[in-house]
Amino acid sequence: MFPVTLEDIHYAAERIAPYAHRTPVLTSRTLDKVSGAFVFLKCENFQRVGAFKFRGACNAVFSLPENEAARGVATHSSGNHAAALALAAQIRDIPAYIVMPKNAAEVKKLAVAGYGGRIKYCENTLAARTATLEEVIDQCKATLVHPYNDYRIIAGQATAAAEFLQDMPVPDFILTPIGGGGLLSGTALCARFISPKTKVIGVEPANAADALKSFKTGKLQPPFPPNTVADGLLTALGDKTFACVSEFVDDIVTVEEDEIIAAMKFIWERMKIIIEPSSAVPVAAIMKNKISCAGKRIGIIISGGNVDLKHLPWL
Amino acid sequence: MFPVTLEDIHYAAERIAPYAHRTPVLTSRTLDKVSGAFVFLKCENFQRVGAFKFRGACNAVFSLPENEAARGVATHSSGNHAAALALAAQIRDIPAYIVMPKNAAEVKKLAVAGYGGRIKYCENTLAARTATLEEVIDQCKATLVHPYNDYRIIAGQATAAAEFLQDMPVPDFILTPIGGGGLLSGTALCARFISPKTKVIGVEPANAADALKSFKTGKLQPPFPPNTVADGLLTALGDKTFACVSEFVDDIVTVEEDEIIAAMKFIWERMKIIIEPSSAVPVAAIMKNKISCAGKRIGIIISGGNVDLKHLPWL
Repeated sequence: MFPVTLEDIHYAAERIAPYAHRTPVLTSRTLDKVSGAFVFLKCENFQRVGAFKFRGACNAVFSLPENEAARGVATHSSGNHAAALALAAQIRDIPAYIVMPKNAAEVKKLAVAGYGGRIKYCENTLAARTATLEEVIDQCKATLVHPYNDYRIIAGQATAAAEFLQDMPVPDFILTPIGGGGLLSGTALCARFISPKTKVIGVEPANAADALKSFKTGKLQPPFPPNTVADGLLTALGDKTFACVSEFVDDIVTVEEDEIIAAMKFIWERMKIIIEPSSAVPVAAIMKNKISCAGKRIGIIISGGNVDLKHLPWL
Repeated sequence: MFPVTLEDIHYAAERIAPYAHRTPVLTSRTLDKVSGAFVFLKCENFQRVGAFKFRGACNAVFSLPENEAARGVATHSSGNHAAALALAAQIRDIPAYIVMPKNAAEVKKLAVAGYGGRIKYCENTLAARTATLEEVIDQCKATLVHPYNDYRIIAGQATAAAEFLQDMPVPDFILTPIGGGGLLSGTALCARFISPKTKVIGVEPANAADALKSFKTGKLQPPFPPNTVADGLLTALGDKTFACVSEFVDDIVTVEEDEIIAAMKFIWERMKIIIEPSSAVPVAAIMKNKISCAGKRIGIIISGGNVDLKHLPWL
C-alpha cells in the first residue's frame, strides 16, 4: 500500500490553507469547441510563486517539528520548487538553502532571493549540485526537501486535485503534465480516494517520454537528454513517484513540440491567462485528441505560469 | 442633465446578462505593495471578444426594435468594437457590416469574420471610411453603432462599473483608461448614481493626452497625432462622451510610454493574466503614484486583453 493516505491529504490541505490560494477553475467555450469535450482548468498558474509547487513545499515546511524546522530546509533546484520552498520557509521564518548553478538565469536567482532564499552557488553539473547540497545539509543540519520524490510533497500536490474535485462536476478524466511525477502522483492518489471512476492520465512531451517508458516497461528509466520546450518536465520519476504512478495512473500519452507551443498560444490568446509550456502539454493532448474525449468532462491541472516573457516559444 | 439614467444602466445590465460574462475581480499582494494601496482589478480582458466593448455593442444591438434590427448594424472600426458588434449581431442573428481599411492586420480581419461580421473594405483614410460607411448604411438601411459616442454604448459600458461596485468594498477611486471616453463616461455616471463618494479618474497616455486638454480647457480637442503603445486609446472624445466626462469625472492624469510598458509586463509576470497596453495605462498611474493612493481602496477597470503575441512592446 502506498504510504500517503487520504488523511495525509486532508492534513496537508489544512496545513497549507492559511498560506496557499484556493485557485479558480476556468472554462472556455472555444476550448470546448476545439476539443469536443467539456474542459475545466484548475489554474495553479494563479497559485503563489506562480505554480502548484507551493502546495508541496508549504506542506513539507509546515509539517516539520519545531526543532527540526529551526535548522531550515534545503534543496537543489533552479525552478519553481526553489522559489516555492524559499517562500514557504520565509512564511515560517526559517532559513531555506537553495543550491543553484552559478550560470542559472538571473530572473530565477532574483525570484529565489526575493523570497528570502539563501542561494549557494555551484558548478552546473549534477555532481557539483549534489556535493554542494550535501555540504550545506552537513553544515547547517537543514532538512532536505526533494522537489517531488517525497511523501510530504506528494500529499501537498494532491491538495490541488482535492479542491478541483470539489469545484467541478465529477470528471471522466483528469490530466496533468508529468516531469518528476509529484503532481501526477498526488492527483492520481487523490482521485483514487475520492472519485474512483475518474481516469487519471499523465501527459508528457514525446521528446522527454521517460515516464511513459518507465510506465510501459515497469522499470524506472533515466531521463532522456532533455529536448523540449516544456522546461518544467525535464526530470525523471523518482522511486516514490514511480511506485505511485505505476499503481494509480490509468495511462500516459505524449504530445509533440509544435502541439505544445500551439496549445500554449491558444490559451494565451483565447483565455487571456499566462500558462507555462509545461501546462500546455495536457491542453495539447485534448486539442489533438490524444485521448478519446468527445463529450467527456475533462479536468486539467494547469501547473504554472512562470515564463520568460522575452523568450516566447512562438517567436 | 445627461440623458443616460440609472434606469438605463439597469436595463442595459438586464439586456446583456444572458450573453456577457460577469467578469471576476482580482487582487494582487505585490501590486498592493508596489502602489501602497488596496487595488481591485475588474477583469474585462475575460469578457467576450476579450474586451469591455462587448457590453456596449450588445446593449446597442439588443435595444433595437425588431424591424430596425432586421436590417442590421454597421460601424467603421478595426479594433475591439468591430469584433464586439459582429458577435452581438451574430447572437441576435442579424447582419453586422464592418468597414475596415484594406490594410488592416490579418488577425483583426479574421476576428471580425470569425464572429460572422460582413467586412466592407476601404482605403485607409478617415474620408474613405466615412464614405464607405455612409454607402453601406444607405444601401442596407443598417443602424450605425458608433464605438463610443452613443448613449446606448455608454449605458452598456456602465454595467462594468455597476458589477464592480457590487463586487468590491466601496472604492475611494475608480480608474479607467480614456480613449473615446465610452468606458470612462459609463463608469463616472454609474459611480455618481450608486457610489457618489467614489472619485472617478481617467488615465491617458501623455503622448495622446487630447482628453486631458479637452477636460482642462472645457473645449473638445482633436486627437493628437497618435504616438502611443496603447493602441486602443488613439481616438478623441465625442461630443456626448465629452459632455459626460466634463460633468462627472473628477480628474484626468497621464502616464509615459515606458511606464505603460512596465505596468503591462508587471501584470503579466505577477498576476499571470494578459492585459493589453491600454489596460496598463491606469495600472501605471497607481504604480507611479500619479494620484495619491496610499492606503486607499482603488478599483481599476482592465479594459481588455487583445494583444498581438508576436509583437510585444518590451521586445
